Amino acid sequence: MEFKSINFAEKLALFSEHWSPRVIAEMNDYQFKLVKFRGEFVWHDHADTDEVFIVLSGEMKIQFRDGEVVLGGGEMFVVEKGVEHKPFAEEECQVLLVEPRGVVNTGEVDSGLKAENDNWI
Amino acid sequence: MEFKSINFAEKLALFSEHWSPRVIAEMNDYQFKLVKFRGEFVWHDHADTDEVFIVLSGEMKIQFRDGEVVLGGGEMFVVEKGVEHKPFAEEECQVLLVEPRGVVNTGEVDSGLKAENDNWI
Repeated sequence: MEFKSINFAEKLALFSEHWSPRVIAEMNDYQFKLVKFRGEFVWHDHADTDEVFIVLSGEMKIQFRDGEVVLGGGEMFVVEKGVEHKPFAEEECQVLLVEPRGVVNTGEVDSGLKAENDNWI
Repeated sequence: MEFKSINFAEKLALFSEHWSPRVIAEMNDYQFKLVKFRGEFVWHDHADTDEVFIVLSGEMKIQFRDGEVVLGGGEMFVVEKGVEHKPFAEEECQVLLVEPRGVVNTGEVDSGLKAENDNWI
């Protein structure tokens, strides 16, 4: 085990692409991923797992078929498995995702926004 | 599913005890817990799971038998399963823990610092 902290700001400075999660840590079979949102994502769900959004800075909205939630810095939300959702951010929003290793950002949806999986920084 | 964000500052304002983790969310069989550290904890390990520390504010140190790591706000660290560690904070440090449901704060160690498990706020 390496005795080195993982600094979110340092890791966020290493990439600029939106909707492209970068893995920064693993705990058991779960991954912690930094991602920068801006604009509108696609409707999708994750059939087999819940998904956690922790907003580090900026503001985002997660739309659901029957509601929405707005998240600012220092706020989190758990999207339950199988629930369709569409993230949106008017300005860039920096987010820490927590989900099992192997989860694809667009779920089962075939979209140009599908990102490389297991992309470490 | 309730469309309400979980705000760390609002939740942290609801308790003042140190070394007493409060559950704020669940993702699959994992829990997200807020905890306030101050002073010295006990040496312990978690035989069956890694444990994630995310520092929200303040500064803490995690001591290991063969090293240590210092964490400030916006930093995280994964303590691997089975690795003995002892958290320490000179001033109050506010932390988000991520670990499987059922993990006891003191591991297998019999200590007066053992906290109630599954304590939601």
